Parts: sequence; C-alpha cells; structure tokens
Amino acid sequence: MITGKQLIGFSKIGDTGAAFSTSENINGSGEAVSFYEANDVNVDEAIQKAIVAFETYSHTSASEKVSFLEKIAEEIVSLGSMLIDVTKQETSLPQPRLEGELQRTLNQIKLFVNLLKDGSWVNAIIDTAQPERVPLPKADIRQMQVPLGIVAVFGASNFPYAFSVAGGDTVSAFAAGCPVVCKAHPAHPATSELVGDCIIRAAQATGMPEGIFSLLQGAGYALSNNIVKHPGISAVAFTGSFQGGNALYEVASKREIPIPVYAEMGSINPVFVLPGMLTQKRESIATALAASNMLSAGQFCTNPGVITSIKSKEADEFTDTFSASVGAANSDVMLTEKIYTSYSSGVERLKKINELSMVKQGLDSGKANSAIPHVFETTGTFFEDHEELYEEIFGPASIHVKADNKDQVFSIAKKLPGQLTATVWATDEDIKEYAELFKILEKKVGRIILNGAPTGVEVTHAMVHGGPFPATTDSRSTSVGTNAIYRFTRALCFQNYPQTLLPQELQNGNKNKIWRRVNGSLTNETI
Amino acid sequence: MITGKQLIGFSKIGDTGAAFSTSENINGSGEAVSFYEANDVNVDEAIQKAIVAFETYSHTSASEKVSFLEKIAEEIVSLGSMLIDVTKQETSLPQPRLEGELQRTLNQIKLFVNLLKDGSWVNAIIDTAQPERVPLPKADIRQMQVPLGIVAVFGASNFPYAFSVAGGDTVSAFAAGCPVVCKAHPAHPATSELVGDCIIRAAQATGMPEGIFSLLQGAGYALSNNIVKHPGISAVAFTGSFQGGNALYEVASKREIPIPVYAEMGSINPVFVLPGMLTQKRESIATALAASNMLSAGQFCTNPGVITSIKSKEADEFTDTFSASVGAANSDVMLTEKIYTSYSSGVERLKKINELSMVKQGLDSGKANSAIPHVFETTGTFFEDHEELYEEIFGPASIHVKADNKDQVFSIAKKLPGQLTATVWATDEDIKEYAELFKILEKKVGRIILNGAPTGVEVTHAMVHGGPFPATTDSRSTSVGTNAIYRFTRALCFQNYPQTLLPQELQNGNKNKIWRRVNGSLTNETI
Repeated sequence: MITGKQLIGFSKIGDTGAAFSTSENINGSGEAVSFYEANDVNVDEAIQKAIVAFETYSHTSASEKVSFLEKIAEEIVSLGSMLIDVTKQETSLPQPRLEGELQRTLNQIKLFVNLLKDGSWVNAIIDTAQPERVPLPKADIRQMQVPLGIVAVFGASNFPYAFSVAGGDTVSAFAAGCPVVCKAHPAHPATSELVGDCIIRAAQATGMPEGIFSLLQGAGYALSNNIVKHPGISAVAFTGSFQGGNALYEVASKREIPIPVYAEMGSINPVFVLPGMLTQKRESIATALAASNMLSAGQFCTNPGVITSIKSKEADEFTDTFSASVGAANSDVMLTEKIYTSYSSGVERLKKINELSMVKQGLDSGKANSAIPHVFETTGTFFEDHEELYEEIFGPASIHVKADNKDQVFSIAKKLPGQLTATVWATDEDIKEYAELFKILEKKVGRIILNGAPTGVEVTHAMVHGGPFPATTDSRSTSVGTNAIYRFTRALCFQNYPQTLLPQELQNGNKNKIWRRVNGSLTNETI
Repeated sequence: MITGKQLIGFSKIGDTGAAFSTSENINGSGEAVSFYEANDVNVDEAIQKAIVAFETYSHTSASEKVSFLEKIAEEIVSLGSMLIDVTKQETSLPQPRLEGELQRTLNQIKLFVNLLKDGSWVNAIIDTAQPERVPLPKADIRQMQVPLGIVAVFGASNFPYAFSVAGGDTVSAFAAGCPVVCKAHPAHPATSELVGDCIIRAAQATGMPEGIFSLLQGAGYALSNNIVKHPGISAVAFTGSFQGGNALYEVASKREIPIPVYAEMGSINPVFVLPGMLTQKRESIATALAASNMLSAGQFCTNPGVITSIKSKEADEFTDTFSASVGAANSDVMLTEKIYTSYSSGVERLKKINELSMVKQGLDSGKANSAIPHVFETTGTFFEDHEELYEEIFGPASIHVKADNKDQVFSIAKKLPGQLTATVWATDEDIKEYAELFKILEKKVGRIILNGAPTGVEVTHAMVHGGPFPATTDSRSTSVGTNAIYRFTRALCFQNYPQTLLPQELQNGNKNKIWRRVNGSLTNETI
C-alpha cells in the first residue's frame, strides 16, 4: 500500500508539511495519494539510524549480505505486474521497456550476489612477516577493502528501477557493507516507495539492522543539499543531469569533511562514421543509430547525440536514411513535463542557429509532453568552434556534422569534453587510416565502442559506465558493473594482527578459497 | 652542478625574479647558489610540455617504463655520497637516516619496476561476446586501467628522497603512464635539483618524451595554487601539513574540472596501551614508544603523539619510563626554522593548559632550531572534551592520557578524527576484553598496528599509508605501496574492439601471462 510517507529505518513517517506530488488512483482504490517532502528532521533521523546500522552492518558476513540481496530481489519479483503498472502510470515508459529494465535490475542484484559469494572482490593483500630481515625485521602486513560508511543515493528519472531505489548504486553500496539513505526521484515516488518497501521487508526478514536503508521523498533542492551536507554521509551516488550532479558536487566540495561524489551526468556520446564504413554500410548504420537515438524518447545517458562523418555523397545519403527513420517516427511522451520543456527549448535553441540546418523532424503524436525527434546538420568548421553544440540535449535530437577532412575529424575529437562513450564505425582500412582518432577518443571516454550503438549498457564485470568530467565528477569510477562496489570501499591495513583478530578474508586458512595477493603473487591457496 | 633554475622539459631555465633561498658552498666550489621562484609562465610551460609528452608516454610499453625507472635509480646511485652531503646540509637530518631513506627510495622504484614487469596491475577484465544470447546478443567488452593525465607532485619537507622528487608519488605516477610536474619543497631545493637532474638524464637516455618531468622551485603559495588550478593537471599528490594539504584541496575544489587530490596531512597516531600489556611489558613498550616519538626529531607523519591507558600505578610507571628516555634525550635540529617555530609554539600552547601537566622535557643541545622533546599528561575526561588536543604537533611531543575506565577509552577512541594509524598494545586477554576498541579504531584509520610502533612505514604491497580525513583528503588511496599507482589511473572500456586494436594486455593471446578476470574468473591463460 503506497502511503506517500518517508521510509525511515523500519517506520513510515513524515507525512506532514508540503506535498510535492499527488498520484490519482495509484493504489487502485480510486483514492489519491499525496507525497510529502522530507524535512531536515527526517534527513537527520535517517542518517543517525544509518550510522547505528553501520556499526553492525559493516561487520555482516558475505553470506548474510547475500541473503539480504536475494531477498530484495524476491520481494521485488513478488510485487508482480502491480509494480510495472504503477511505474507505467508514473513514467509513461512502455511496458516492454519497463519489463526489460526490471529484469536488468534483478540481474544487477544477482551480479553482486555472485561477487559476494565469490569473495575475492575484497582485494586481500598479504605480506607475511620476515622477523630475520636485516637491518630491520619486516612485520606481517595485510590489507583488504572495507566499507566507507553511509552512502547517499539519488535516484534517476530515466531508470525508475535500474538506477533508482534498488538500482546499481544501492545494491553495490549494500554489497560493500554500507547502509544507504536514498532520495527517491520525484518523477516516480510511488514506484520508489514500493521498491523501498521491498528493501525494508528484506532487511527485516534477514535480520539486518534498522537504518540500513531509508527512503526520503521530495522534489526540492534543499532536501538534496541537506543530505549531501550531513556530516554522517561518506559518499554520494547520483545519476542525472549535469546541472543536478554538478550542484551536488559543489555542495559536497564545501563540506568540512571531503567525501567522494560519484555523479554520472550524461554526455553527447559522439559517433564517428568513417569513409569505408560509410561506403559499405551507410544504410544499416543510419537505421541502427536512428533507432538508438530515438529509443525511449532518447532518454538515455548514452544516447548518440552527435554524428560526424566526412562530407560526401555517401555522408548525405547516411543522413537521408537516418532522417527517413526520424521522419517516420511518432513523438513519445517524456518522463516529466520538466524534461519535455528542457528538450523542447534545447531544440528551439538549435533551430535558431543559422549555420545549423534542421534536416528532419518526426511526427507529432499529439500527446502531452511528447518529444518530436529532430535531426540537425552542420559543417565541421562551424561545429568545432561552437562549444554550446557539445552540450547534451536530453531527448531524441541529433546533430550530423560534415567535416571537411580527416584532420578536421581529429580536431573535433580533440575538442570534445569528457564523455561516457564514443562510438566509431570503421572498416579494417578505416581503423588503419584513422588510428589517431582512437587514441584521441580513448582519452576522452569511459567506454569506446566499435561498430555498435552506445545505448544498451551491459551489466557485466568489464563495463565502465563513467568517464572524464563533465560525463561524471570522478572518472575513476563506474556506476555499472561489479567494479561499482569500489566507489564505496577503502583499503584498511592490519599490521601484526593475530589470526583470531583478522577478518576471515585475511586469515591464513582462506576458508573460502578467495584469490589473494600473497607476498606479491596471486593465489587462492591457504598460507 | 646545482644551478637554482627550474627544470622544464629538458631545459634549465627560469633564474629570473625573486630568489627564495640561497645555499652557501652547495657545489663545493665556495660559491653561493640562489634558487628562484617559478613564475606563471614556467608553470604553464611545464604543463604544456607534459600534455604533449602524455600523448606518447600514455602509450609507452611496460618494458620501456621499466628501463626509464631503472635508469632513474641508477642515476641516483651514481651521485654517490655527494647527494647525501648536500641533503645533510639542507635538512640537518643525520647521515644514517638519509642513507636509510635513500635506500628506501631505491627500493620503492624497484617495487614499481617489479609491478610493471609482472603486468597484472592493469586489472584487465574481459567479458567475451555472446552473439547467440537472447533476447539481445552480448558484445565483447574489455577493460583495463589507463593513465589519468598529468600529475602534480608536491614534495614533502621531512622526506627529501622518499616523498620528494623521485619519491613514491612521482614513481607511481610514472609507472601508471603519467607525466609529472613536481614542485620541490623549499626546504631542500638543491637535493631536489640533483634528483630532478637524474630523472631528466634517465628520460633522455631511455628515449622518453620531453615534458615527462618538470621540476618547479619555489616557496610561495601562489606557485602551488597556480599548479593545482591549471586545467592541464589531472591529479594532485601532496605530503605535508594539514594547513598545506587542505589549502590545495580547497583550491582544487574550485576548479571547473574536478580532479582527485591526494593530500596526506599527518595525524596524531593514537596509541592505546591496555592493562594486561601495561602489567607485563610497560618498560619495554615505554622505551620503544619514546624512541618512536623522538625519531628524527619526531618529524614523521606516523609519530605516536597521544598515548592512552587506564590510570593505575602501572600506567604511571609507564609514563615514568617513557619520560626518563625523553629526559635523557638531546634536542635535535628540525628540518626548517618554520617547522621548529611551529613545534615550539605548539608546545607552549600545551604548557598553558592548566589541566595538562608537563611531565618531562629533554635536554637542550643548544643548537639553533632544535626541538626539545616533551611529555605531557592529562586525564581522559579532560582529553576527550578538548578537540584541540586531537590536533597534531609535528615534532617530539606526546600526551599521555590516563582514562578512568574502559568505557572512557572507547569514548576517546570514538571521538578521534581520521588517522593514518592507530596502535594497540594488548595481550590475548586484552584483545578479548577490548574487542570493541579494535572495531572503533578500524573505522578511523588507514592502518592499525598491534604491539608495534607506528613509525617505519614498510614499502610493500599490503601497506596503506592513508586514512580518513583529516589524515588525508581521500581515504580510498594510499601513498605507499603498490596500490599507490591506482591514484593515477582510471578504467577504460573497449567494446567490440578487434584484437589488433586492443592494448596488448587485453588481447586474447595474453603474451605476458598476466592475471585477468575473464568472464568472471581469474586466469593468467590465453583465451
């Protein structure tokens, strides 16, 4: 039953003050539910409970954490179609997309469950004592990753499951041993409460401490800022706009105690279609990229927004094919009115630039807040000199850049700010000819894709969903894949500890046969 | 030949403007050498050259990096006793200490050489394609660590070799594939130039690009701030005072493009001597800790500054023994007049606190800027309520805290700010009785030591020389040990890359048999 309240520890409270949103008939009973803005007291209470929970949760065994995570997945599954019905109502995202995203979210939980079961993720390093060493004896020194503290998670608008309440940020923090204080995205508060309830039920069922998770609802900046400012918070995870992420980063940078801020803020995800590929496969590439650009109304952080090729008949045909797809596409309803307004004004801004021609726009479905896809075109010379074109327009818009020559392609690539992804379509011949391009792009991105689409971020060990600023505020991190866990850990070193005092992962016995670096060599044996 | 100039790229320039220091007879010729403050133009030139160098150095092979690092060590060794003579003159540190530190610096280079030779440090992760997967095929996805960019290194006053020009920060940055712009500490500019020359000669001899290393001399804040502000800098490594490190952190937090700042700022390194151990070994512990506290005039970041025990006859005898060592010790000359003044005023501040009694002070050697060791004592009740006593006094001073009972010990531990180290002296019985103390301290420190001294930071894989703020600005990092390299790297993900385009570490062949995580399992085999 959705209440509109805050989930603080194991209680539902905080339905006083201003409601920021009201959902009609969200419980199927015909009654409206109002969602209330969490206040300072709620923030402090949630964090204080998390601090107490951290005392025990930081020492919870891997198998207990596994039970907790598996129970969360089980609780989400048990909501059945009700969850998707509610989310569809809140986000306007289509059923297959939501079903896919929910499955992805469950897979993500499973990925961290397997990581915990395997156990080697703690990066145990052991250097045994050398009491006879001269001139000085060497002490026994061991280290492993330990949890950082309380993690503040900010849910994203565009992924109501996978990057929200029980998404990758929360689950990787739990796997690391960190309690989570989650701020629900105001675009889907009911979905957030339902999923939050699942986490609370799972925590209670598996004996986790109260305070391991709290969910705060709200739409105001003050709430977000108060969470980030709170001295009890040890790390921040955010997925959303540059404006939102950068604002939280700035609040955090004024804290007395510095903390890591992992804000994933999107990018234009440049695509380069090189001449050989343009000659051989321009039609299929154009169709694939147009689909990638318009998927879910273009509301992906990895949406390909700028496509560069060298001007030619083939490049024009590429744009024609791309534009034909766009022209035949209906406008899709966006996640929120605010996102729609932002998209529309972004498109209007582009339309006013004389040197940018609007090649095509899609069909208007007539639905409120629906984004009409747009294709723009400009020259390489104009593009590379106009920084504002390197800014993301969140939605189904793209700019096709026609460069004069290879050098201008390199020059455009060099001017790119940090990106989540870059994509190159290239034949073997193109790869040789444009070797320099790969070197340039590899310095700019978290992930580089050859002959594919940037959308579809695989949940797997080797994934990097991150990248140099302004794609994120910390290029050393990823918010997708197993390495996301290291955002919330630090190394702790134990010197001269007896076996009984050491964490199990560092004891000689190596009960779980985890991989450890012992005196410089990797081994999963006992010592 | 020491010139007092800046080392920018492969040139020695910048001997105009104000000299911040002059050394008499440093070249043995009887002539004085003046050292000049680097200006804005020098800073920019050094960083621009580094940016160009990064283009090639970021793709330099492990074996080429090994040659470079080995050559640096060789060049340093070839300076012979001249280097130590110069450093002795600049730092007043005794010959055996300098010889030991130089050896440590060479060992540190060797540690990174071995890390590069082994090759597994790149953390290669490979998830192979599953083209038949339904509903969507899985692309081939691979990641490894790549260098972050240009690293600004700030040399420390107290380690003229190991944490200075060719110290752990510089060498780990080079190992990562990053050029270094180093700001020499003004307390030992001649030593810095000599070692800087070694790096330049090594770079030239092994074909490294010009700009891979520059050395800027200076004593002003403006120079440091200009380096940290420069958009070309990708990371900052600093070892020094809280004031210095925090100031650089604040400058960095105002940058348009955020960068990691790894400032190691010292700590009070609390020691707890528990009752059983106090009964059994108070004399030997007191003697060992007094030696640790006074070593090199107490000028170590890991110097034990606060020693807590439960009040008792044994605790008093412990302090008596400790004080006897201190009382018999002569004052040692500190690194700089500024450090001496800061130590003296810190001691005077403590002397003025009524609730703190001065138990003992050492002998005055009569030498200028020499620090007389001091022992203070206070109650647990007074100590835990006075935050200012949790602040480091850099030098040979210690506060002995006599707690009322076990709960007060826990309470003191809970109030500690972040520390590089904590040390507990405990019998097996104490360990059981004080289990809670270990849990509290483990949350506060980078390294916890049982029955040992915190000084003597072993250069080894498992070492963590770091810790929660205010010990450092980034608790996820270490400045000592192999993991120091990860301060200067980030993960880069390659999707659907052909074998020929992948870095060697990610190619199926696995030529160097490095350890990689392939489809979730660690292996050093080919694919």
